[in-house]
Amino acid sequence: MTKINKENLSKSAEASENPSEKHFIYKILHPKSICIFGANNNLLQTMGSMQFRNCVAGGGFNGNIYPIHPRLDKVQGFKAYKSVLDLPVIPDLAFFILPPKVVPQVMEECGQKGIKRVVITSGGFREGGPDGIKLSQKIDEIAKKHGIRFIGPNCLGVYNGWYGYPEKKDAYFNTFWIYLPHERGNISIASQSGTIAAQTSWHARKIGAKVGKSVSIGNERNIDLVDFLEFFKEDPQTEVIGLYIEEIKRGKEFIELAKKITPKKPIVAIYAGGTGAVARSIKSHTGSIAGDTRIYEGMFKETGIIQTNSVTDFFYYLRTLSYAQANKVFPKGNRVGIITDSGGSGTIMTKNAEIYGLKVPEFSKELQDKISDYVPPTGSILNPVDLTFFKDFYEFYVTLPKIIIKSGEIDCIFFDGVFDIEEIFDVMEKSGSPIDEKIRSFVKSFYIALVKPLQRLVRKLSIPIFYSGPQTYSHKGYREFLKHDVPMFELWDAPPKCMSMLVKYSEYRRKFS
Amino acid sequence: MTKINKENLSKSAEASENPSEKHFIYKILHPKSICIFGANNNLLQTMGSMQFRNCVAGGGFNGNIYPIHPRLDKVQGFKAYKSVLDLPVIPDLAFFILPPKVVPQVMEECGQKGIKRVVITSGGFREGGPDGIKLSQKIDEIAKKHGIRFIGPNCLGVYNGWYGYPEKKDAYFNTFWIYLPHERGNISIASQSGTIAAQTSWHARKIGAKVGKSVSIGNERNIDLVDFLEFFKEDPQTEVIGLYIEEIKRGKEFIELAKKITPKKPIVAIYAGGTGAVARSIKSHTGSIAGDTRIYEGMFKETGIIQTNSVTDFFYYLRTLSYAQANKVFPKGNRVGIITDSGGSGTIMTKNAEIYGLKVPEFSKELQDKISDYVPPTGSILNPVDLTFFKDFYEFYVTLPKIIIKSGEIDCIFFDGVFDIEEIFDVMEKSGSPIDEKIRSFVKSFYIALVKPLQRLVRKLSIPIFYSGPQTYSHKGYREFLKHDVPMFELWDAPPKCMSMLVKYSEYRRKFS
Repeated sequence: MTKINKENLSKSAEASENPSEKHFIYKILHPKSICIFGANNNLLQTMGSMQFRNCVAGGGFNGNIYPIHPRLDKVQGFKAYKSVLDLPVIPDLAFFILPPKVVPQVMEECGQKGIKRVVITSGGFREGGPDGIKLSQKIDEIAKKHGIRFIGPNCLGVYNGWYGYPEKKDAYFNTFWIYLPHERGNISIASQSGTIAAQTSWHARKIGAKVGKSVSIGNERNIDLVDFLEFFKEDPQTEVIGLYIEEIKRGKEFIELAKKITPKKPIVAIYAGGTGAVARSIKSHTGSIAGDTRIYEGMFKETGIIQTNSVTDFFYYLRTLSYAQANKVFPKGNRVGIITDSGGSGTIMTKNAEIYGLKVPEFSKELQDKISDYVPPTGSILNPVDLTFFKDFYEFYVTLPKIIIKSGEIDCIFFDGVFDIEEIFDVMEKSGSPIDEKIRSFVKSFYIALVKPLQRLVRKLSIPIFYSGPQTYSHKGYREFLKHDVPMFELWDAPPKCMSMLVKYSEYRRKFS
Repeated sequence: MTKINKENLSKSAEASENPSEKHFIYKILHPKSICIFGANNNLLQTMGSMQFRNCVAGGGFNGNIYPIHPRLDKVQGFKAYKSVLDLPVIPDLAFFILPPKVVPQVMEECGQKGIKRVVITSGGFREGGPDGIKLSQKIDEIAKKHGIRFIGPNCLGVYNGWYGYPEKKDAYFNTFWIYLPHERGNISIASQSGTIAAQTSWHARKIGAKVGKSVSIGNERNIDLVDFLEFFKEDPQTEVIGLYIEEIKRGKEFIELAKKITPKKPIVAIYAGGTGAVARSIKSHTGSIAGDTRIYEGMFKETGIIQTNSVTDFFYYLRTLSYAQANKVFPKGNRVGIITDSGGSGTIMTKNAEIYGLKVPEFSKELQDKISDYVPPTGSILNPVDLTFFKDFYEFYVTLPKIIIKSGEIDCIFFDGVFDIEEIFDVMEKSGSPIDEKIRSFVKSFYIALVKPLQRLVRKLSIPIFYSGPQTYSHKGYREFLKHDVPMFELWDAPPKCMSMLVKYSEYRRKFS
């Protein structure tokens, strides 16, 4: 169990056979050897140098990294070759971070060498006017001639947290220039923006959204969104898919494929297209023509794709679905039970729950009676259950939620009032207050004592608990939840939004699978 | 200038005379002495003990803190008195954290002693059924008899970051049980939820929203929202007002007063009222009857109050207005210029800008020409200006924004692509890359070198720049912006929302002041 939770992957995904290995994309994400064009020893001034550094930092290549450089003998400690034709091996993958003009020539050489997979970071093709379009056609021809499949141009390439798994547990493959890779999990992202693929790793790590694969697909000259959907469909390590879309090239194929995928693997999309200024921004970004927002929204609805314009929500939705998939927890209805130690947060969550289409039903007299033993007279037992102040951690964290989960009166729970208790103890100690060492050691293992006891029940009954509190994700106590992949939220805004999304997706999943 | 920025207060607010001193609320926020009922030496089990601790921790009372306790001789190191009648002085303020039943008696004794101001944390009055209502009436009578004004019951009391200012720069007054107080600034909050008043300090500090005063007003038996609006109106340290509202008792007075305040001091409100489950949650929280959402929304519109249901947005709006007020920066229109090093974030911000009613106009040929000197051929000069990759920090951070600010073609700017450069240098160093010490020392003073040079121009032309980047608020480089009260955003979602709010408020302000 622990192992699976740590990898944030469901049991069923731990397949012994991997059908995605047969897909042509597999080798781009799992190359055993790589040659890199466009890196030198200056990490600040040359983007390719940082990308080279990151390929090395992933730690999985066993030295099979070959820099190609016209002048240097060594690049970042690795022997450099003047030409790809000089290499002692045929690398699984070639990676170009070069001015667009020289790309056709080195690509031709790669073809001659027998290389079949390429990642082209270089910009200035489609988005670079008539000259760029000519260059694009040239690389198409070369690719066709040699049977090369390539990502890009105008992309950052790939991150694969599952590279080397399970033999090399800590290895990963990362061509991004951003130096902090994502954290391995069951989320896979394909993005027409390098920023969304790569730069979001800090945020995703902060909230505990674990991304196993992230691909910046650029201009999609050769490999497009549909190819990646095909691959993710077969990939057992992918259980949730995130897309950043400015345009869809093969609409019909996309729709058909997405319809097949979403009942099993949910897809969340940012559609950044539109008219006016957005179209102008997109044209200079990837060179594509943006579509009509309404057409896209209709398409998302038809295919069951969950859409948002917010990057924050994008990662919250991915994280929520990642948890649901890994634990097979899909709420059966929209009735929320709220447990809190604070009237204000309970009220705000109730209001937002209703705004987002959830119900907060008043509890039956019978359930109220059961609850009342644990709630002080100044509190409330109606739903929200508001303790106002509690003295017994076990009653608040375990006994009360258990009673409410088992009642049959709700489909999911918001549990608010999580504090980093160790921080409170530090404050107390500094203030000269005597500390009960028994409580302190209890608190140190609070996940095992207070959170874990409910998780089996949560999975068995498919009734998720979303925890929240007023502190920040940087707090140790909050990171403990994220470490164990239990949904924990900073503040009270996101739980109603995320639960509403999950309830709707669960309904869709039941209907179509 | 530094001093004002550090206090996050506009020059005009540094008044020599303070008209709010005459208001009866002043002494509740600035008591020279305090007696506290309901504290002992157990900081974990008794809420009042933590509240006592926090009053001490504020460091402003010069020992004038008097615990009242029937049995203990000392409370947290302070001499305790059996009765308030035994005290050697008449404290400016009495503070009750007691079971509701004993409140009338101690209040009567406080009256006899001559105490005129009281804070009642105790719950169980209005929200406590018929017995509670009787108790409420009793304390009303006692207050009337002795001329006492009181906050509560059922509240957490007050935080005043300006307590002791300017003599004791680091002192504050804090009766909350939460141990981390807000950070002093020009934002003042009055809240019908203790959670919103107190527990939000971690979040507000994280994003750099500086709250000078925060009051949990509870049941408003004696002092209500209107009283606090009156006080904040006169208070020179209050330039932005935040309200958490479940009901408004004196509707007519509230509307009249709010209309007078909002053109000078913007008000942001969370209205958590409504029907159904929300009404039930509120009734058990503060005992009040929630109103019709549409009526409240109409009222907010009429009075120019900015409304939201999100706590995240609440603090982002307060922070945005705090900056605008302190620097007198109010954009004159809705035209945004976007500068970025990444096409994806530029596109997302453009789309959200348009969703929120802002315009991202294509730049004139003349302006494009000026910009093109600083943008590589793979980038874009149309608006968004997308550098894709930059090598010269000064050109990206200073030269380009200056050209665009001075163009007259935009009213505000989104500047995306801020990284914690020191972190990049650390990564490079660990990777064995040679570091240019000149660049490193330049980077260390990047606020002075790259951000400050624009701030004078920003103020002069009233054209705000909102900075953003993909890292988190915990990054040192980002905290540098917050330290200097320059709007810095984690991710790309909040800038369009906040700018749209500011543009609308600025228009309202011009119209009504």
